[in-house]
Amino acid sequence: MAHAWTTDRAQGLDRADEVGGARGSFLLPEGIIYLDGNSLGALSAGVAGHISQLVEEEWGSRLIAGWNGCGWMEAPERIGDRIAPLIGALPGEVIVADTTTIALAKLLGAALNARPSRKVILSSTDNFPSDLFSATAVARLFGAELRVVDRSEIPAALRDDVAVCCLTHVDFRTGEMHDLPAITALTHDVGALSLWDLCHSAGAVVVGCEEHGVDLAVGCTYKYLNGGPGSQSFMYVRRGIQGELENPLPGWLGHEAPFDFDPSWRPAGGIRRFLTSSPPIISMAALEAALEAFDGVSIEQVRAKSLSLSQLFLEAIEERAPASLVLVSPRDQRRRGSQISLRHEHAASIIEGSAARGVIGDFRAPDLCRFGFTPLYLSHEDVFRAAEMVAEVAVAAEAATG
Amino acid sequence: MAHAWTTDRAQGLDRADEVGGARGSFLLPEGIIYLDGNSLGALSAGVAGHISQLVEEEWGSRLIAGWNGCGWMEAPERIGDRIAPLIGALPGEVIVADTTTIALAKLLGAALNARPSRKVILSSTDNFPSDLFSATAVARLFGAELRVVDRSEIPAALRDDVAVCCLTHVDFRTGEMHDLPAITALTHDVGALSLWDLCHSAGAVVVGCEEHGVDLAVGCTYKYLNGGPGSQSFMYVRRGIQGELENPLPGWLGHEAPFDFDPSWRPAGGIRRFLTSSPPIISMAALEAALEAFDGVSIEQVRAKSLSLSQLFLEAIEERAPASLVLVSPRDQRRRGSQISLRHEHAASIIEGSAARGVIGDFRAPDLCRFGFTPLYLSHEDVFRAAEMVAEVAVAAEAATG
Repeated sequence: MAHAWTTDRAQGLDRADEVGGARGSFLLPEGIIYLDGNSLGALSAGVAGHISQLVEEEWGSRLIAGWNGCGWMEAPERIGDRIAPLIGALPGEVIVADTTTIALAKLLGAALNARPSRKVILSSTDNFPSDLFSATAVARLFGAELRVVDRSEIPAALRDDVAVCCLTHVDFRTGEMHDLPAITALTHDVGALSLWDLCHSAGAVVVGCEEHGVDLAVGCTYKYLNGGPGSQSFMYVRRGIQGELENPLPGWLGHEAPFDFDPSWRPAGGIRRFLTSSPPIISMAALEAALEAFDGVSIEQVRAKSLSLSQLFLEAIEERAPASLVLVSPRDQRRRGSQISLRHEHAASIIEGSAARGVIGDFRAPDLCRFGFTPLYLSHEDVFRAAEMVAEVAVAAEAATG
Repeated sequence: MAHAWTTDRAQGLDRADEVGGARGSFLLPEGIIYLDGNSLGALSAGVAGHISQLVEEEWGSRLIAGWNGCGWMEAPERIGDRIAPLIGALPGEVIVADTTTIALAKLLGAALNARPSRKVILSSTDNFPSDLFSATAVARLFGAELRVVDRSEIPAALRDDVAVCCLTHVDFRTGEMHDLPAITALTHDVGALSLWDLCHSAGAVVVGCEEHGVDLAVGCTYKYLNGGPGSQSFMYVRRGIQGELENPLPGWLGHEAPFDFDPSWRPAGGIRRFLTSSPPIISMAALEAALEAFDGVSIEQVRAKSLSLSQLFLEAIEERAPASLVLVSPRDQRRRGSQISLRHEHAASIIEGSAARGVIGDFRAPDLCRFGFTPLYLSHEDVFRAAEMVAEVAVAAEAATG
């Protein structure tokens, strides 16, 4: 039987691709189809030059004067403002600082302080473990309770003792996406604050922080934003509540006048108060350069291509692979992030065999094959070829084990 | 009257300088004598190449495989082990992570948890403001009290309600150094833990963490360790107490098995439990390369040269500058870090005038001129010339306003 998906058909989609031009901004290794940008994004062409400039011309030549003379001091807000449109936030609502888990602890603490009569952090059992570690620790520090329920029970668990509802928008295992507008609205209905972890969302799906009234968010910048290994996280705080929230882990960089070295804490206006201490400027430079790949591209275009890629992959896999390779991600596109996860008892060897053919996905124990789709540097043809190879490897794995 | 300090005499010291060879590892701008390495250390020659290698060969080519294949995962401990001998710590006692203020919050929290019946964090009024912000916030989170006293009153304030005594070893304004062995011993006498901020110590003075039984320490790596703007902080936890201390801001990287994605927290053995989340690998690469400047040099040699430089600077200034330029740093070398601070009503214009002649110090409001001495890249001749110029500028400032 002829397959519905062919190289020709994939190439046809590439000819109509509105964001395909960004692919040239990335330096991808030869012979590799990289479907693990949801773990670590790829290197873009401008990064090395931007870092060199920073290291040699700025740090090397300007030394201490770089902080004020080269814009290092403003980097957290300046880079935040470049991320803002990608999550539907306004200028001044996003800042780059710390790591996701620390940023989450800060915003959870700020939320609990802002709702002193409520003592519950609500989350889901399938949330990213580090988020649960952080929420457990913060709950303990604030004399609050972390209530974790199955993701389906979140609406029912939103009662008026909840201070903050803290969920990861796109699940790291399955790619399932929460209904952010609906849950945010329910959260507000009970007077709680909404806090979204956007690690697997930023740069890949439409979030619409402003449109949906999201209060707080965090996210990493090394996945779909391509900021480089361990690049800093971002924090989003809705403008309307910035003035009433406190940073529970304050530091001199978030002070109103850091260079006064005033021993009494006076928080900076706006989102800057959520800073604590000096950011790693060289890593920040990599992130800033990487974000240029989003110039001239809207997040709606990125999302449309992401779905086009994941749909192609899913359909092409399903028409070629054995039935034992089972879809775990939502089939409904409205509930799917930018990845396809497939369950198979030989998942580890399928990921390994695919990698041997140049298709990089990742294995999540015990039995998940996970493939992420970064619209800026993947073509439909790449994804089609990857699907063919993964299917072949799965067929072979099946045959080998009988 | 002939001056005791001359170019010849300074050059004589340089000929006998045991650590002078390190100077060639640094890329200093032409025509500049940089006495602000206590704010931001200078760029060393190996950094740019090391970063390029990391960005292009590791991130660009290995992508996600870099975490395990290129040693990124072990970077916090590996780089920590290079810092350890510089503060007199053992391998496995130092880890690189976060920023100083966050690291301080973690270790303060760990200390309070380890002494549950005690509710006081003791510090000094002149501690670095960010340390006081952090201690205030942690005290509040743990239901404890931050007690701040004049530095002279620390011994008397060490009573048996103190959980942790948290001081900055070398004062950022004056360069005055606490008597770490004596205060640490007094701290232990009352059953409290000692926590030292080594920001202005690491890489410049002898600390002797192990020798003196220091329990906990933090410090930045962008001053005398030359790690680059905003490079990560380090944490030291004495081996004997690592097992009993908890990280109050846990995250997946400090988990016993991070890739199990187990939602229940099981701390890693040893110091790794104090990690929270992924470190900024590109900035970490700069730090790792910068630390090579310490290869083959002992911290005792560094300290001897540091004192030789600051003593020369002080004496040469005092024989040339007006009496209105008053020493604020301790004259006693045993109590002095690696800087000389001088008070003058026209301090700002003295720093500005010196900078115009190529001598970079810094101004701390309202009236301090601060000069730091990095033994690895400054010669005695540099420091002598700087003293001559600063003195000339001070004389001129005096004449202009007198």
